[in-house]
This record gives sequence, structure tokens and C-alpha cells, in this order.
Amino acid sequence: MGTVHQNIPSRLLQRWVDELGQISDEQGRLTRTFLSPAMQRANSRVGEWMRQVGLQVEEDAIGNLRGRLASGQPDAKTLLFGSHLDTVRDAGRFDGALGVLLPIVALGELRRRRITLPFTVEVIGFAEEEGVRFSSAYLGSKAYTGQLRPADLALRDADGVSVRDAIHRWRGLTPNRVVRAERLAVKPRHRGKEGLLGYVETHIEQGPILEARKLAVGAVSAIAGQTRGRLTFRGQAGHAGTTPMALRRDALAGAAEFVLLAERRARVSAPLVATVGTAAILPGAPNVIPGQVVLSLDVRHPRDAARRRALRHLIEGAKLIAGRRHLACRWEQTQDNGAVTCSAQLTAALEHSIRAVQGRSLQLVSGAGHDAVVMSALTPVAMLFVRCRGGLSHHPDEFASPRDLGVALNVVLDFLQRLATSEKR
Amino acid sequence: MGTVHQNIPSRLLQRWVDELGQISDEQGRLTRTFLSPAMQRANSRVGEWMRQVGLQVEEDAIGNLRGRLASGQPDAKTLLFGSHLDTVRDAGRFDGALGVLLPIVALGELRRRRITLPFTVEVIGFAEEEGVRFSSAYLGSKAYTGQLRPADLALRDADGVSVRDAIHRWRGLTPNRVVRAERLAVKPRHRGKEGLLGYVETHIEQGPILEARKLAVGAVSAIAGQTRGRLTFRGQAGHAGTTPMALRRDALAGAAEFVLLAERRARVSAPLVATVGTAAILPGAPNVIPGQVVLSLDVRHPRDAARRRALRHLIEGAKLIAGRRHLACRWEQTQDNGAVTCSAQLTAALEHSIRAVQGRSLQLVSGAGHDAVVMSALTPVAMLFVRCRGGLSHHPDEFASPRDLGVALNVVLDFLQRLATSEKR
Repeated sequence: MGTVHQNIPSRLLQRWVDELGQISDEQGRLTRTFLSPAMQRANSRVGEWMRQVGLQVEEDAIGNLRGRLASGQPDAKTLLFGSHLDTVRDAGRFDGALGVLLPIVALGELRRRRITLPFTVEVIGFAEEEGVRFSSAYLGSKAYTGQLRPADLALRDADGVSVRDAIHRWRGLTPNRVVRAERLAVKPRHRGKEGLLGYVETHIEQGPILEARKLAVGAVSAIAGQTRGRLTFRGQAGHAGTTPMALRRDALAGAAEFVLLAERRARVSAPLVATVGTAAILPGAPNVIPGQVVLSLDVRHPRDAARRRALRHLIEGAKLIAGRRHLACRWEQTQDNGAVTCSAQLTAALEHSIRAVQGRSLQLVSGAGHDAVVMSALTPVAMLFVRCRGGLSHHPDEFASPRDLGVALNVVLDFLQRLATSEKR
Repeated sequence: MGTVHQNIPSRLLQRWVDELGQISDEQGRLTRTFLSPAMQRANSRVGEWMRQVGLQVEEDAIGNLRGRLASGQPDAKTLLFGSHLDTVRDAGRFDGALGVLLPIVALGELRRRRITLPFTVEVIGFAEEEGVRFSSAYLGSKAYTGQLRPADLALRDADGVSVRDAIHRWRGLTPNRVVRAERLAVKPRHRGKEGLLGYVETHIEQGPILEARKLAVGAVSAIAGQTRGRLTFRGQAGHAGTTPMALRRDALAGAAEFVLLAERRARVSAPLVATVGTAAILPGAPNVIPGQVVLSLDVRHPRDAARRRALRHLIEGAKLIAGRRHLACRWEQTQDNGAVTCSAQLTAALEHSIRAVQGRSLQLVSGAGHDAVVMSALTPVAMLFVRCRGGLSHHPDEFASPRDLGVALNVVLDFLQRLATSEKR
């Protein structure tokens, strides 16, 4: 305990991260979205790795991959590890994948050392966290924790396919799977919160702080709250050549004003961030005045009250812009997650291990949302952040060094053995 | 001559317009783009109608449909009629279609009356005018007049298919067709301008003036010049939750500033119009800061110098915006058509007929571009505008009344017979 483990198979972890990063729906870049063909291949491959280290593998109705190492002990509790296997478009290979693969490697290493744990461990590869396909994040962990709602199953992707249809088509399975997914919406899969020790998620930091402080890893104290939705501006399509400027009701001009309003509001309210990441324009031709624009809006702040105030201000601002331009304006919220405070007890245990491995620890606030946000409704959560170069993520240049992966792996091994000791007592 | 023709089959014209308006690539709305399956069906159906009235039908390499009524006379000249058979997305049924179908009905009516003409007439249904598929307009008339360039054949649609590939796949024909299209790029199909009497295009006005003046039809004196292109803003994609506002290089925020600049500049420079109709955002996810945005820009003015000055100002403005925001900015011009003055002689003849049919004439400037712009490089052009309700076009509610279609048909019949008399002299 407390020593730096040598000869850790961090090279294996690196290899798996690299191999999984090749499994993509797009040629030449990494894009793996919810219930896509690449997701099928990813689940199959990660499932093989889980079996290699002795886990029992199952895929649930919504496509979450679950590997379980049951304890022989009667009434053993369960410790959950996980993160997500989907990615953004043109993604890096660490975001999500690391938090699924690292605990598998750690369990393999414990097995090699013939160390058994007095608790069951489950490693979860969530099928959906990024919200790319349905503009709504956390579908995987929501299903896992029984927070999926019928409205989530009715969400539609850009091709008009609903979540329900996508589950239907996933591996060509029968409607039973849909029924099971619907059941998930009502009742969690777990016997109860009592049987759980907590949920631990390892993730790249996606920010610049660990790098600035010259630390390989840190512990997360809290995760910023986040609201997402769609803002629709509707005007009147018309001919680009024959409609005088004064008579136009251009939905894109209204949307452009809003993009700048959101930027301005967030700039003066740090650490608030507000992002418009997509704009769907109808009819969408160079010679037609836009009649409708649907923007995505993502607003985050570590304090819930500040986030809600900013959101109210932005929606009021959108309505003022629309009113002035004789446009209609509608806000539909697709996601709302309050800020999450990590478990003091689990985080303290994690920081013990961090200090044991790298000498000192550091607590960080996560600006990014994680599956841990949704899992916090089920069980106490803790997060281990790993330094990434330049704070860059959601980009093919995303990078965590082999050395830092080794440190993270050592921390998780130390944490597991420390927890084993305390549970045995 | 000069009398209002009774019993004109304007009802047939109305029926054809309605039937053609049903031939679409999309369920429930009219969208017929260049070399699409619907375009195949449209060409087949219009080809049948051409044959019914005695025209010889041919489809050229780029998909232009051509119906020819050869004169029996030696050394007969040729009069061209035409417009386009493609549409914008969610289009009305008159734009383009009217200018192809009306002359076919007129030639049928002359045949019924056993009137032969001392010149050959060709009716052309151009395959591409709106620029929807390749963001570049007039591909059909450019091919027809030998103005297509190798760069045009290399243009790619949203799926990465080039014009060259699309011609390849069109009706599953051999590469010969591509070779023929390439040849079009070098050499016009016509023996020479000498053999041509001119080109006449009938089109809905797409503006409010005829309606305001209570006239069914009017003659076009000139067509506004038009520049189109793509404006690319490039910044840095990044995580929407972890990248502070101050460190962002958001391509969409820069693009939004430009949209408002274009609107502002055109508003103070009437009759200038400037339109951003599309925006392609990469990566394009709600939780990723936009790294790249490509806007379409369409600028028009009846005076070439004013259009060019506005365009220069807008591109300089885009570069200033980009510079301030540490974005890269690039302008690619895809189309540039100078303002076109219609033929004084042909237009005078058309106005004779207009006055004969509706008592008085009116000259209008066209804010919209038409195939006549490109055809003016080959031969003198004239245009007949037909009143449309509310000036609305590029919209399913686009409407020209059966009565106004009858007036336009009478004008063209009168014009043909008047020209026949003068050519016989």
C-alpha cells in the first residue's frame, strides 16, 4: 500500500486506447455515435478485453456495455467504474475510452497478482454521453440509473430516426429490447443504492490546470451544472434577389444576433460559458433568405443559481431580438443538470492514493459534464482527472502521455487495494 | 395580329404546371435538383409533352432537355425559348417550369391552327439554374452556351459527388457523356450566333411591381448583376464546458458578425441586396465550439460597379472581423454575372405584343438572375414577366393566376406570329 507500483501494464492501456481510437464511423477520423455500426464494433472489442481479464460481460437494452467481476463474499457490495464509449465528431481517443479501459487493465493486473477483492466491481462503457446523435447527452447513464423518460425515447436524430427506432435497429434485435429500454425509463436496474459503494470515473481533464501545476492527475471536487436546448427563430423564406432588405424577415440574421449576445453575456460573467455549436437553416440554399434557424445552446456554471439567471437572460434576449425583427422564437430545453458535488469520503480515499503515487494531490472543478453527473443520483461519485496536453479535447490532437496513464493506473490500483483493506475490516 | 386570341388552351398550361409541380425528390414538397431522380422523371414527362406538339426531343450531356420544331425553309434561323426545370428546396411550381411549358403549349396551339413559322423554334428546359446542389447556378445554360469550365465539372455537392461524377451516374450512362460534357466546356453546341434570332424567357416576376400596377405581364429591361461565393471562417474547435470564453476562437461567432455586417451594408445601399442563405458548421455538435463555418454569400445590384464595391467592402469587413478574433478567413467566388441589358429590338417586339394583348406595357428590372443572363453571351435576350401573388417565389405558396397565364400565352402567340410576318418580309 502507498508505494508506487512498478511494472504496471500501462503499455497495454495505451495499446487499447489506440486500437479503440481506430474504431470509427468515418474514414480517416474518429467519430463513434450512439448505436452506430462503429459502436457495435467498439462494444464487441471492449467486451473481448473485459472477458480476457475475467469479467462477465453483458450489454443492456440501450447499448451500455457492462463487465462484472463478482466477489465470492456473501452480501458483497459493488463498486462501479465507468465512462462512455461514444465520441464527438472528429474526436480524440482518450475522452471516455480512458475511463472504461483503465479499470479493465487495473482488474487484469490485480488478477495477475492473484489479489481478490472483498467487493464486486462493475465496469460500465456507457453507450451515449456526448449528445451528438440526438442533441441530448447522457442517454446511456440515464437508462442505467432509471432516469430515462418516454420523451427521451421519442427524441429524433437528423434523419428523423427516434431513440426508440434506433434501439430497435441496434443489432437487429426484437421489440423486446425496446420494451426493456422503456422499462429502464421507469425502474432502475439496481436492487438499490444500499448495495453500492460508489462510482469512480477516470477522465482526461479537458482543461489546462493540471498541466500548469505540473501534475499527472488530480481529484474532482465538483462538476459544473449544464443546461442544453434548442432555440428556434422563424421568419419568412423568400427570394434573395427580389426581396428588398427592408421587407425581409431573415431568421439567420436574428440567430446571428443571438450568437453574439450569448458570447457577450458569458464573457462578462466568467466562469459562465455559453456555446452555440450547431445551426440548422431552412430552406438552406444560397439564393433563398433563411426562413427558419434552429440553434443549439449549451450554458454551464459551477453555481446553479448563476447558470439559471444567465439562461433566463439569454432567452429573454432571444425574444427581444425576435420581436424587433418580427420573427417567432421558441426555446426547448433538452437537458438540465444541476452542479454535482463529488462524494467527500470517496474523494478523500482517492486523494490518499493520489498522494501515495505522485506525492501531492489537487482538487479541480470540472467544467465538462460527465456520466458521473447522472450516476450521482444513484450512488456517491468520485472522479480522477488525467492531465492532457494543452487542455485540448474533442479534437484529434487530444493527448495524454503514457507516463500519465501509468500514474492514473497506479492510483486506481492503490485505491482498489486501500478500499479492499477498509472493507475487510 | 394584335387581337386577343380566344379559346387559348391556357387550361392545358395550368394542368402541365400542376402535374410537373408534383414531380419531386421529397415527399410532400417540391424539390427537384440537378441530375436527381425527380429531374429524370421531369425530363421524361416534359419530353412527352414536347413530342405531343410535334417537337423533336433531345437531352444533352448535362441533362438539358431540348425540343426542336424545324422550319421547312432553307437557311431558316432559330428562335430559342426556355427556362429551367430544377427548383429550390420546398419550391413553388411556376418558377422555371412556366418558361419551358408555355412555349410548348404555344407551339401546340399554332399547330392546331395550322400556322407554320418561317424559322426554327427550340424550347430548352435547362437542367440547373438554382444552384442548390453545387452552390453554383446556371450549370445548364453554361453548358449550352459553351461557358462551362473544367472547374465547374470539379464542383462537389454536400455528399462529395462532383458534377463530373453526377453526369456519370445520370441515367447510368457511359463516360462518353462526360467526355461530351467536357467538350461543351470548350466549344458551344451552336453553329454560331448568326443562325440565332434570340432567346425569350417567360418567368414569374418574383417581385411585387406588376401586382401593384395591376398588370398581368411586363417586359424586362435588365437583369441585376450577381456575385456568389463561399466565405470560410476558421478558428479552433474546443470543449464547450472547459474552454473559458476569453480563450475561444469561435468560428460561428465570427460568422455571425459577418451575417449582421452584410445585412447592415445592404440596408443602407438599396437596391443592393446581400444574403447569407447557408452556414455549414464543423464539427457541428452542441457541446463543441465551432472550429469552422462556411457561409454562402449572394450579392446583387442592377449596377455592376455598385455590386463590386459592396462585395469588396464585405470581404474587407470579413477579414477585419476574422483578424480581431484570431480567425482565418477565405473568400471563394463561385459565380459572377454582370448586369444584363435585354435586347432593345426583341424587347420592343415583345412590348408590341404585350400592348396588343393587355392594352399597355411596363418595363421592369429583374432582381433575380435567370438563364437569360448566361444566354445573353450567345444571342440577344428578352424576358416576359408574369405577375405572381404577393411577389412570393421560392415558396410552396408561389402563385400565378390562370387568367394571367392566359395573357402570357396570348402575348407569346402574338409575338411568334408578329415575328413570322417580319421574317417572311
